Formats: sequence, structure tokens, C-alpha cells
Amino acid sequence: MGKKYVYLFSEGNGSMRELLGGKGANLAEMTKLGLPVPQGFTISTEACTRYYDDGRKISSDIEEEIYKNLAEMEKITGKKFGDASNPLLVSVRSGARASMPGMMDTILNLGLNDTVVESLAQITGNPRFAYDSYRRFIQMFSDVVMELPKPEFEKIITAKKKEKGVTLDTELDADDMKDLVNRFKAFYFEKKGSEFPSDPTLQMMEAVKAVFRSWDNPRANVYRMMNEIPYSWGTAVNVQEMVFGNSGDDSGTGVAFTRDPATGEKKLFGEYLINAQGEDVVAGVRTPSSIENLKKEMPEIYDQFAAIAQSLEDHYRDMQDMEFTIEKGKLFMLQTRNGKRTAAAALKIAVDLVDEGKISETEAVLRVEPKQLDALLHPQFDAAALKKATPIGKGLAASPGAACGKVVFSAEDSKAWAAKGEKVILARLETSPEDIEGMATAQGILTVRGGMTSHAAVVARGMGTCCVSGCGAIEIDEDAKEFKLGGRTFKEGDYISLDGTTGNIYGEAIPTVAAAISGDFERFMNWADSRRTLKVRTNADTPRDAKQAIAFGAEGIGLCRTEHMFFEGERIKAIREMIVANNVDDRKAALAKILPYQQGDFEAMYKVMEGRPMVIRFLDPPLHEFLPQKEDDIIEIAKELNISVAALKEVISSLHEFNPMMGHRGCRLSVSYPEIAEMQTTAVINAAINVNKSNPEYKTIPEIMIPLVGDVKELKFVKDIVTSTADRIIKESGIEMEYQVGTMIEVPRAAILADEIAKEAEFFSFGTNDLTQMTFGFSRDDAAKFLQDYYEKKIYESDPFARLDQNGVGKLVQMSAELGKKTRPDISLGICGEHGGDPSSVMFCHNIGLDYVSCSPYRVPIARLAAAQAAINEKK
Amino acid sequence: MGKKYVYLFSEGNGSMRELLGGKGANLAEMTKLGLPVPQGFTISTEACTRYYDDGRKISSDIEEEIYKNLAEMEKITGKKFGDASNPLLVSVRSGARASMPGMMDTILNLGLNDTVVESLAQITGNPRFAYDSYRRFIQMFSDVVMELPKPEFEKIITAKKKEKGVTLDTELDADDMKDLVNRFKAFYFEKKGSEFPSDPTLQMMEAVKAVFRSWDNPRANVYRMMNEIPYSWGTAVNVQEMVFGNSGDDSGTGVAFTRDPATGEKKLFGEYLINAQGEDVVAGVRTPSSIENLKKEMPEIYDQFAAIAQSLEDHYRDMQDMEFTIEKGKLFMLQTRNGKRTAAAALKIAVDLVDEGKISETEAVLRVEPKQLDALLHPQFDAAALKKATPIGKGLAASPGAACGKVVFSAEDSKAWAAKGEKVILARLETSPEDIEGMATAQGILTVRGGMTSHAAVVARGMGTCCVSGCGAIEIDEDAKEFKLGGRTFKEGDYISLDGTTGNIYGEAIPTVAAAISGDFERFMNWADSRRTLKVRTNADTPRDAKQAIAFGAEGIGLCRTEHMFFEGERIKAIREMIVANNVDDRKAALAKILPYQQGDFEAMYKVMEGRPMVIRFLDPPLHEFLPQKEDDIIEIAKELNISVAALKEVISSLHEFNPMMGHRGCRLSVSYPEIAEMQTTAVINAAINVNKSNPEYKTIPEIMIPLVGDVKELKFVKDIVTSTADRIIKESGIEMEYQVGTMIEVPRAAILADEIAKEAEFFSFGTNDLTQMTFGFSRDDAAKFLQDYYEKKIYESDPFARLDQNGVGKLVQMSAELGKKTRPDISLGICGEHGGDPSSVMFCHNIGLDYVSCSPYRVPIARLAAAQAAINEKK
Repeated sequence: MGKKYVYLFSEGNGSMRELLGGKGANLAEMTKLGLPVPQGFTISTEACTRYYDDGRKISSDIEEEIYKNLAEMEKITGKKFGDASNPLLVSVRSGARASMPGMMDTILNLGLNDTVVESLAQITGNPRFAYDSYRRFIQMFSDVVMELPKPEFEKIITAKKKEKGVTLDTELDADDMKDLVNRFKAFYFEKKGSEFPSDPTLQMMEAVKAVFRSWDNPRANVYRMMNEIPYSWGTAVNVQEMVFGNSGDDSGTGVAFTRDPATGEKKLFGEYLINAQGEDVVAGVRTPSSIENLKKEMPEIYDQFAAIAQSLEDHYRDMQDMEFTIEKGKLFMLQTRNGKRTAAAALKIAVDLVDEGKISETEAVLRVEPKQLDALLHPQFDAAALKKATPIGKGLAASPGAACGKVVFSAEDSKAWAAKGEKVILARLETSPEDIEGMATAQGILTVRGGMTSHAAVVARGMGTCCVSGCGAIEIDEDAKEFKLGGRTFKEGDYISLDGTTGNIYGEAIPTVAAAISGDFERFMNWADSRRTLKVRTNADTPRDAKQAIAFGAEGIGLCRTEHMFFEGERIKAIREMIVANNVDDRKAALAKILPYQQGDFEAMYKVMEGRPMVIRFLDPPLHEFLPQKEDDIIEIAKELNISVAALKEVISSLHEFNPMMGHRGCRLSVSYPEIAEMQTTAVINAAINVNKSNPEYKTIPEIMIPLVGDVKELKFVKDIVTSTADRIIKESGIEMEYQVGTMIEVPRAAILADEIAKEAEFFSFGTNDLTQMTFGFSRDDAAKFLQDYYEKKIYESDPFARLDQNGVGKLVQMSAELGKKTRPDISLGICGEHGGDPSSVMFCHNIGLDYVSCSPYRVPIARLAAAQAAINEKK
Repeated sequence: MGKKYVYLFSEGNGSMRELLGGKGANLAEMTKLGLPVPQGFTISTEACTRYYDDGRKISSDIEEEIYKNLAEMEKITGKKFGDASNPLLVSVRSGARASMPGMMDTILNLGLNDTVVESLAQITGNPRFAYDSYRRFIQMFSDVVMELPKPEFEKIITAKKKEKGVTLDTELDADDMKDLVNRFKAFYFEKKGSEFPSDPTLQMMEAVKAVFRSWDNPRANVYRMMNEIPYSWGTAVNVQEMVFGNSGDDSGTGVAFTRDPATGEKKLFGEYLINAQGEDVVAGVRTPSSIENLKKEMPEIYDQFAAIAQSLEDHYRDMQDMEFTIEKGKLFMLQTRNGKRTAAAALKIAVDLVDEGKISETEAVLRVEPKQLDALLHPQFDAAALKKATPIGKGLAASPGAACGKVVFSAEDSKAWAAKGEKVILARLETSPEDIEGMATAQGILTVRGGMTSHAAVVARGMGTCCVSGCGAIEIDEDAKEFKLGGRTFKEGDYISLDGTTGNIYGEAIPTVAAAISGDFERFMNWADSRRTLKVRTNADTPRDAKQAIAFGAEGIGLCRTEHMFFEGERIKAIREMIVANNVDDRKAALAKILPYQQGDFEAMYKVMEGRPMVIRFLDPPLHEFLPQKEDDIIEIAKELNISVAALKEVISSLHEFNPMMGHRGCRLSVSYPEIAEMQTTAVINAAINVNKSNPEYKTIPEIMIPLVGDVKELKFVKDIVTSTADRIIKESGIEMEYQVGTMIEVPRAAILADEIAKEAEFFSFGTNDLTQMTFGFSRDDAAKFLQDYYEKKIYESDPFARLDQNGVGKLVQMSAELGKKTRPDISLGICGEHGGDPSSVMFCHNIGLDYVSCSPYRVPIARLAAAQAAINEKK
């Protein structure tokens, strides 16, 4: 016999996550622990990848193995699949290595057919339950396996209710359900040209295939990209004996966490529904009761569940997220997993577990996903403004944080408006997995239906997006794009604000303020810092940003762009004078006007930095970016510059570029116009001298970075201007000051020839934005149009501009770092592309031995944590 | 004592070219051979590089060494520098490792001052000669060393002639010359604020520095770039005793070749002027006599010279280019070097030397510069059209070939018109080194003055450009931009034609036809072919180009671009229909219209290729290139496509790209629209099947190339479309046919990951045009604007789009080739960028083990020869 693809729950354990998926491994582990788990088997993730490798077919050896395990399952349960007297019914569920809630397909009640349903009716003495289960199964199977969409069946139900003159499903009796089953089957035959499959084993095999297929559905693909889950992993499939929470009032189903997933508070937290199936809770159709109520309603069950919950948390040493079902007064555990939680909860739980002596500080550092911290750093409402505001309504505080934006009513609109730079709040009756992209682009999410564990709430918490759910007071009309609340009507584009921590909804825009690192957060970050070796700097061009970054723990500035300083007021005029200058003297005269501004800017920056290192990058963008393009502006600016419109137009046209990304920019500007580098050097060195004179304790050492270098001679040419200017000024100043000159490695040629470049460069900063563009040969702006096709076709699984392409661009970075060190062993190596704030990229930078990463201020804590985790994982 | 920087002629020899420069090494060699060479010394090229390293200063140790050698020279000549009774006068000339005629500075008659001139007048008994020499020296020294331009002095001469009422220089007597000397010195004092330097050693040291400086003058820099001479080489300086060809009618000066440099014919070929200085011949101011006449005029001198010429040719085993001076009946050799020659001459000389038993076939292959062959491949006049044409005049056949174009009258205009795509003929009174760039952009060159060895003739032959010189019948007015000849007036922009082989000038456009490889050329190319291992293919998209390339020896097609086939007639309409299609079906319908055209094109190509390999590249350019941009065209084409103008505009705007070079193109198109690859595969495979059915002997094996690949998954995605389509068609056809799928390596990421890419690619073709753009991070169109600054600042010494950047891009190519072979040892490796026809790049390709280069048809013979030389040099 070959490889084993199918495992009974009793054959696996919790460490087999890669093979059995998270759900399967944990079902096995719970079985091992002797907990009440409906038995079954798991078809491994390897069976899924083989399914795809074999051209979307389940090979006969795997089929046979499934049948064999089904037989085992029949032995264990004492029931028989398709049996008329004691039938086995099963659920077929996906379960990937990483949890992907709601992204893939599930089929319940499988095993029913015309014979079995009758026997089920007899056994349970509840024909309505039996036929309701049957029609649900037909509906689910047709949708998931046969691609007959659910709404088509809903129409049939609606017609039936109309005929009977009733409005609720619960008003339909057993005969009505039986009739619906017949109508469903007729509809199925009409659409498919064949009978609805009645053979339970056929049903099962088709369901397994459907789950495998669902690994590749669009929303799963989007979710994977967002969460960096490789396509190659595949999903396992769990076949489990059905237990029925909808067997009567002594039955029920629920989900619960061992700690509050929003705050981290240590208490059992969850919801349940009496006489319901699990899907009813997750889908948020009925609003469930708090788990607290179960204590009163079914005290024994509650105690049993609470004890199991505590033992699972102790066993896994982490907060658990569990699904359970009560069938006729008996408790069954359907799932346990490490619970998703907000960043605040993740922090509190990690710190509490340390304080409870359950985990070490080092383990705690690994327990928070770096990306999650983002949520803690996002703005909260301005307290003063909040005092003046009165809520117009209240929902559930489903995901914390504050949000303010224009209201939109569909995921598409959310995407479209956000793409235009608008901040939006997505308001929905309830969200579904199809909405996932629109949810990601919204500042906040507001739903009318659904509890704390509804789709909207779970997904929003995962994203760190503010969410208020289940605000039943809202009357919403998604088609008309408006909602009513508190006596007011809000139309698309109106401002509202949400407080995800209180559940309050405001009918106005409330300004927000930045968050701070203190308390548990500070303690936790200190643990992280004491474990990391990679330094974290920030990309900042203004004293305000620099201050914020320092507050977030930045140890310096890795990229201070000078061109951003050029766009304000009088400066842009002087820049334009420089650009239209016909000769060196005019150009120098214009640059002389810019000098005091630049020098003042750098002084202010050096003061904020208080001696922390700061890499200043010289002028980078092509000059045409500083000139107007519209006729009106051209006329106005020509007047301002005191030149003719024709002359200005000629300059504009002479600066036109076919591919501006690959044009006259970066150090190429200083090669053509050395006086630019001369002015910028003067500004930097004067500023540093002044600050060192007023604050000698800072011992500021200027770091000047020449961008877009592709050849050592090019670097040397510009560096010679810098050093001759700097040396002269320093000598004249009479004080002693060191300074450094380095370069950005962002052109592939520089990366390849880094050993030569390092002869002249005292530091390298990897500009991975441009390096990614040039290495892939696509520009970011243009690639956005076709990268979607690449994701859909699985050619790329993540956005190379967000997550460093370690395979290609990373190989260049690594090669370049090694070559640089060969020439200059003490060369300082950093990264200043946007990847500097992406956790997986930060880990890569640690692993290849860079000295620091530099990222935007709000990502500094993320980078600190990612760097700490990289250092810990390296030691393992 | 440290390094030796100065060598007496008697200390050196011919092998010391790197140290002494070509001129210096050959002067030493001639001295060694006992030939009559005015003695002197050479200051080495290392002294030049040290001059630059020391910040443009001659260090004191080198100065001392020069003085020491000057003293030796005084001993040898028995004359004394600056001596009143027996003064030594010298020439100071440049002499680089590679000959750079006219590019650097020369100073004659150095050592003259107010005392020495009097003694010279006495010794020669010719005061006019002495003062003429003196005023020439002041003029030359002021111009070259002191940057007082010559024309300023010419004005003083003109004024003097006006005062005397004469028109010719020769009408000025000794006193007039003396007066001119005084006026020159007064002018010098006025401009410089100091006396003209009278100390001969000071004069010499300044002259040496000026020659060193002239290594860095703009025209030398341009010449070096064109001829790939590294800046780092530096020039040597030769200080040589003056001999005076202008000492009377028993004196003279001339230049001669041992074989005809235009045809290669074995006969002494040259020109001389009686009573003249060497510069007069080279400058082309007076039209000199043929060397044949010297036989009659000075038979003994002629015989002596002819014997020396033959001995030099035998010694160097190559055709010699010599300068000589006759001073009062005594012959002196001033220079010998391997003569520059036309391609035809180079071929004939190489073949003749083999037939004469002087060199081997292998040596012969090394004797022709590959780039030179270009001239032999250029069009000649259409014989029929030529019969009907009557010349309007005749000049000297200075550089062979035929040219036809619009006449322009300045180098600037030649450059400007050529940049606009015009074919021009440059007509000048005479050319000067400043004209070099304008000469390079012209189809042909026509001069009024100057002989076969004038500047125009020498440079044109070097460039392989057709040239007719010395047509004294022309009345030219360069300012008015017109010339008169044969009773007609030609204005700027009028068509003329030149026959550089006969010297005929035609006042009309005469069509030209391609050249063929036969006779000596064929024999020579056979020698080359039998020595090379690198295959040579061509880049061709049409049967016409393919046929031409095969005639030139192409062994296959390395790049057949399919998009060029898309632009004609009905095709472009179908392409546009495809682009505006809203869905897959419409797109397929439009593609179906294109299919028969493409298939027909490929069939025609396969027929011409007769089984030779042909790599077909799939659609590459971004789709917006097929759409109109102008309002009028948009309206017309919208109508043609039967869609609204607004709809077409929306498509155009949706296809707009910020950086089209890095946009939606290459294989990215087929990722988005797989039906394009499907159609193209169908066309290729059907065409090959049809041709293999009609001509089974061809055994055509289609080679399909997927462009712009950056990831193996991307390649696999498109390849899967190709193979599934191809396999199906081949199966249906019932015949057996292999085919190959490969990729272009033109994106840096593909080069870095070539080992992975090679898993799916059966061949690599290096697209070094795009690879150069992306590796350097500049686009060709935009870089043109600033690359000039890079050349001027010595950052780049050659155009990386013309000559492969072996250091950077080449490193990627080599790495990629090695990675590719590691995965697939039998992978076929070629290059299809424009570098495939550049000799130094071809040699690089040979050295790194590529299988073939592919270049434009007219460069095929060049590549064949370069490949042969690479193979020969490798064995050495």
C-alpha cells in the first residue's frame, strides 16, 4: 500500500495540522483527550493537492480509502450509511492548515434520501424535522456541488409560503416540507436533466470533490492573498457524524471563546441558539443568546462545557474558539481552535498568560501577529469632539477602534470609492463572504443583523477594522442606497462615525486622534525589543511624522525624502525657476533661494531626532513633476516665472518622458546639474552644524543618500560634489563633524555590482519599491491593471509591492548585501521600501543579516514585533 | 629611482604600443631598423594617466625625466634647445595606443623665440621662412596651449594683407612676417596680460600638458566612443626634432600607403606637396600631387622611399601608412603605422597577403575589423537607374559605396535632419575634426577641397561612409546653404547622389540596391566560418529580410516578431476589433479574422527558411500601440469599428499607461487574454504543418518564444496554452512534427531565476534591449536625453544600447546562462537584442558559451567575422 490519505479521528492528533488541517487535527486531539466528539474521519490536505495534480479527479486508491474509513466509521457509530433502519448522516466540511472561516464550503445532513428521510422521521418521531433537514440538504448540495444557486430554491419556498398565506418558514408544517422536497427535486431535474442523487456514497464523494474545488473559489483566493496562505497547501475534508441541535428544545448549538476575543478579558464568551443548526449561529440570521444564559437554561450542560473549555485552553495554552451542539440534552464538541482575536485582546491574553504562569515572555511575543498591532495604532475619536456628539443608535461592539467616513451600501461601492481616495463606512443588512474585498477597503463596517460571531464581526476583527454589528433599529434599503436611524435618513456619501469599542453610531463626522503605546502594549513591546537584533527606523519627511515614529519606537530615520519639502508655497516657485533656468548661473540663483528653506527643514528634523541617525535622500523625482500640465496653470505659472507661455511649454515638452519611472531622475539629475547636489549638501551640512552647535550632546552625524545609482562612477561623481562641498563647509565652521555618504540600491545593475558600488558607499539602503518594479519589469501604476489576472491565474499569490518577492527581488537584495560586505565589512545595510513594514519581509531582512528596516511611522511597532519574532524563530 | 616615464626613440621598440602609443612605438621601431628618423623621445601613456590622477599636473619627477631626455636629445642631434647659434626645434605630438587621426593636438616649430628666429634666419639664409615658422608657432601654441583661437590671428593676417593690398599669404614677405609676429605677440599680451613665453623649456612643458589635456577634448571623446577606445588608456607625447619640408623647392612633405587604402591594390599610393609642412597635406588646404609624380620630380628620393615602404610592409606584415618629409633633398620618416583602409581594401589586402604567403588564413581573418564589413554590405546604385543618370561633376573617389540623400551644409544640420529620419548628404568646403558627428549621421560626404588623405577622406573611409572629396568645380556658400555645380544650383534639401567608387556626383536621387558576398569577400568569409563555433542567426519578420539575411550567411532566424505583421491593411482593423472586444467571444471572433493572415505569413517565412530554425516571438507590444491617438483618427476608426467615439476613447484611456515599457505587454497579454496565444499557436503550427506537407525535406520544427517572462509559473501558464493547442492540431493533422517552446530572458527577474525558468523553457533568447533598459533602470527613449551628460562626465564610455554592458547586463546574461544550463544542460542559448550585431558583444557571447547570436540581416557578416575572431583569440 502507498501513502495514507484518510485518517480516522482516533488515528490523528493535534500536531498533524499540516496533514489534517486545523479542524481535523483538533478533532483528533479532542478525541484523544476523551472529549465528546461525534466521530468520523479526515481526508488529508495531500489528497487535495493530489486531486488538483490529477486534473481535478479523486483517484481510485483514495476513493477506496475513503470507503474503507466510512466502513470503520459505521462500526464506531453503529449506524449505516443509507440504511433504512439506523442511518448514518454526516457533515462534510473543509479544514485548511490555517483557519479560513466561511471561505470554503460545507454540506450538512448528507446521507439523506427518500428512504432514509422516512426512517429519520420515524426514529425522531419528528417528520417536520426530518423533511426540513432533507430539503436543507438538497438545497445545500445543489448549491455547493451542482452549482444550482440557493436563491432559486428560496424562490420556491417563497412561492409555497404565498400559496399557504404564511410569512415564516416556521409556519410550514411537515407536509409542506415534504412538498418542498418534491418541488426541489423537480426543479433539480428540470435544471440538471437527471434525478437528484439518492446514493449516499455518491453524494459523499461529490461533496468531497466540491470541498476540494472550493479551495480554489474566488473568495478563498482573495482571503489567502490577504493572509499570505499559500495556494499549494490545499484543504483537508472532515466527514463527521451529524448531531442535531435542531432536534427540539432540549437541543441547541453554539460557539464560544475561553476569553473575550474583543478585549481579552478572562471569561467564557459566546452565544448559542436553542433548537438550531450550527450554520444558523454563524450566518447571523437569528440573533442568539449570550452563553451566560445557558447557565440558567441548562446548568449541567453549561458546567460540562465550561470545564471542557478550561481544559482545552490549558491543554493548548491559548485562548480557544469552540463550536458545540446539544442533541437532546447531550453535549457534543464539534470544533476547537486557537481563537481569532482583536489586537487588544491578543496583547492582553499574551500578557495575562505570562502573568498566569502559563507561557514565557518569549512565547508571548510569538502570540501576537505583527500585522494585528496596526489596529492598536489606528486613530481613536478625539475625546473633546466625542463629548459633543450624541449617538443616533447603538449596535454590538463587534470590532474595536473608531471609524469615520462616508456611508456606502455595497462592497463594490466600498472598493470603488476607496480607490478614489474616499474614506468609507460599509453599511449592510448583513455581510457575506462575497463582501470580503469591500470590507477590507472600508474604515468601518455597520450591519443590521448578526451577533458578535457573525460573519461581519469575525472578519472585521481579523482585519483590525472597526465594526458595529446587529443594530436592529436600522431600516436599510440597499438598493436605494439609504438607511434610517434615530429619525434621520442617511444617503450614500453622508458622513457617519462608528465606535467599535462601545457600539455607538454617530450621524456625523467625528475627528480621530492617534493611539499611544502604554500599559500592556508597552510591556509587551519591551519583551519584543529585548529579543530583537534588527533595528527599526522610519520613513519620515516632517518633524510631525518623525515625532510620531519616535513615539512608536523608531530608532532613527531610514528615509527622509527631500522632494516633499519642495512642494510648498514659495519653494515650488524657486524650484520652477531652477527648472526653466537656461544656464548654470540662473540655476544656482534659483537654488540659492531654496537653500534657506531646505536648511531650516533639516534643522527642525535634526532637533526632533536628538542625535538619532537620519538618512537624507537627495532629490529623486523627474523635474517635470514640478511643472504644471493644465493650460490655465501653465499661463499663470509662466506669468509668475516671468517667461513666455511658449517658453514654459517648450520646457515642459523638453522634459516629457515616455517612461518617467525610467527617466531623468535620482542621481541622474545631479549628474546633469551638479549644483543641485551642491545646494542640498550645503543645506544638510549647515543644518547639522547649527544643531550640533546648539545641542552638542546630539552629536549629529549627517547621512546623505544618493538615489538611483547604477554604476560606481556615477555614485563617485555625485559623491565628489558632496564631499568637496561638505569638507569645505565643515572646515569653515571650525567644528569637527563626521558625515556619511551612501546610496540607495534600487536599480538591478547596482545590486549586481554592489561590490564595486560599496567602494564608494558607506551604507546601502535597499529601495525595494523601485527595485521590485525594475526586477519584475512592471511599473506599479500600470501593473495594478493586470496583476489581478495574475492572482486569478495563481501566477502570483501576493502583491510584490506589499510583500517582498523573496525569491526574485530578495535574491538580488541578498546577493547585493553579500557583495557589499565583501568590499566593506562594516557597511550599514537597511531597507527603506514599503516592505520595511511588512512582517514577512521584515523577517526576511533579519534572516539575510540587514542592520535595519525603515517603514512608515504607523508600521514601526509592527516591524519591531516582526523583527523580534524573526530573532526568536532563528534561535529555535 | 621609480618608474620610467620617458623613453628615447632608441630605447623603445614596436611592441611597446601600450606604453609609448602607436606613433612612439613605431618611431622607436623605425629607429631600431636604422631608418632615417629625426630623433627625440616619447613621454609614456602612464605619464598621461598620472597627469590626470595628480589633478592635471605633471609631477616634478616626470618633469626632471623630460629634461634629462631633452639633454640626451641635444647630444644626439648636436643642437641645443633655445641656443642662438645651433638651435634645436621640435614638434610635440600626441600618440595614443590606437590611432586617433586629427583628434588631439600637435605643435610644430617649438623652441622659437626672438633670438632663435634670428639664428634660424641666418642658418637657413631664409628670413621669410624663419619668421613664417615663428608666426605659425605663435599661432599654434596660442591656440592649443593658451586657448586663444586661431581665427583671431587669421583676422590679423587678413588686416595685414588688406593694408598691403595683397590677397595671398605667399605675397607677404619676410618683413611682413616679422611684423605679423610683433602684432601676434601684442595681441597675445592684450588678451593674456603677460608676454608670449620665450623660454623654450617652458614652451615645451606647456605643450606637453596641452597634448595631455587634448586627450579629454570633446572631439577626442566622441571619437573614442565611436571606436570603443577606453578613456583610461591616455595618450603618449612625442617630442621630435623638427625637419622642414618648407625649406625650399628641394624640400617637401607627404603621406603614402604601401597599398591603395580604397581598393587594396598593391602599389605605392600617396600624395606630397613641395615646399610645405606636413600639416598642409593632412589639412587638405592645398591639393597635393600624386606620389607617382615624385618618381619624376625626385627619382632618388622616390626610390629610397619606395624601398623603405616595402621593407616596412614586410617588417610589419601589413599595409603601412607613412608620413615623410624631405628637407633640402634628404628624406626623413616621421611616422609609420598599419594603414586605415576601406573594407574592400582590408579584404583584398588580407586575401592578397595570404596569397603572397605573408600571413596565414587565420591571421587574415583577424586583419579585418568586423564593423568595417558594413561598408561592403551597403547598397550600391541600381545599375539600370545609374545608366540613365548623367553626372553633373566629379571629385576624388575618397571612400567607396553609393549614397543618395538630401543635401545639407553643416554638421549640425546633418545631425538634426538625420535625427528626424532624413537621409542626408553632407556638403562642405572641407571638413574638420569638429564635423565628426555630422559626418557619422550622413549617407555620404562631399567636399570641395582636400585630397585622398584629407580629413574628410580618412574619416569617411574609417566610418565606411561614401565620400567624394576635392571637387574644386563646386561653388559653395555654406552660409546661404547652397552650392552650384554643372550649371545648376542645389539648395538645402535637394536630392543628390554620390558614387564614392568613381567620384561621380549626380544632381538627382538614384535608387540603390543591396550588395552581395562573392569573390574575395566570399573566400574570406569562408575562412572565418570555418574558424567560428558561434552560430549566427538573423532578426527578420518578412520573407524579403529573411532572404537577404540568408544571402549574407544567416543560419536561421533568432527573432521573428509577429506584431509587425499586424500593422498592415485589414489586419490592423481586426486587431482593433480584438482590442475593443468586450468579451471572450468577440475577442475570439476578431482573432479568427487575423488567423489566416498570420498563418499565411508564417508559411511564407517557413518556405524561405527551407528548414532552417526560426524562433517566432508572440505578440509583444502593449495594445494601445494599435490604437489611434489623434482626434480625427479616433473618429474615423470608431466609425470603421462600428462603435461610438466615446466607447473608443474609453478603451484608449483604459489602456493608457504611465510607463508603457513596463506595462501590459509581452506574455502579460496572453495571461489576460489566453485566446491570443491560442490563435498565434494555431497560426504557427498550421503553417509549419502545411510547409512540412508540401516540402517534407525541410523538416521544419517550429520554435515558439514567449516574451517578457518574469516567473516560471507565468511561462507555464502561457506554455500550457501553446502545448495544448499545438498537440491537438498536430494530432488532428495526422503528421508527426516536433516543436519547441522557449522564452526571452529580458526581465531581470527571469535572469536571476533562470534555473527555475529553464524547467519550462527549451531555449532562452536574451533580449538584451529590454534587459539593458531594466537593468540600468532607464528607458532608451528617455535616456538619450541624459546619456550625453554621462559620456561627457566619463561615467559611461559607450552606449549600452549599442555595445553590451558586459560588466552589469553581461553579468546577468552569464549568470542566467549558467543557471539555465544547470537545470537543462542541452538548453539552446542565443541573443536577439541589437547587441547581436555588435562585434565586441558577439565576442562576449562566444566567451560565455552562447549557441548563437541573432542580428539584423546587414550585420550578419559582421557577426560571423566577430565570432570567428573570438574563436581564434580564445585559442591563443
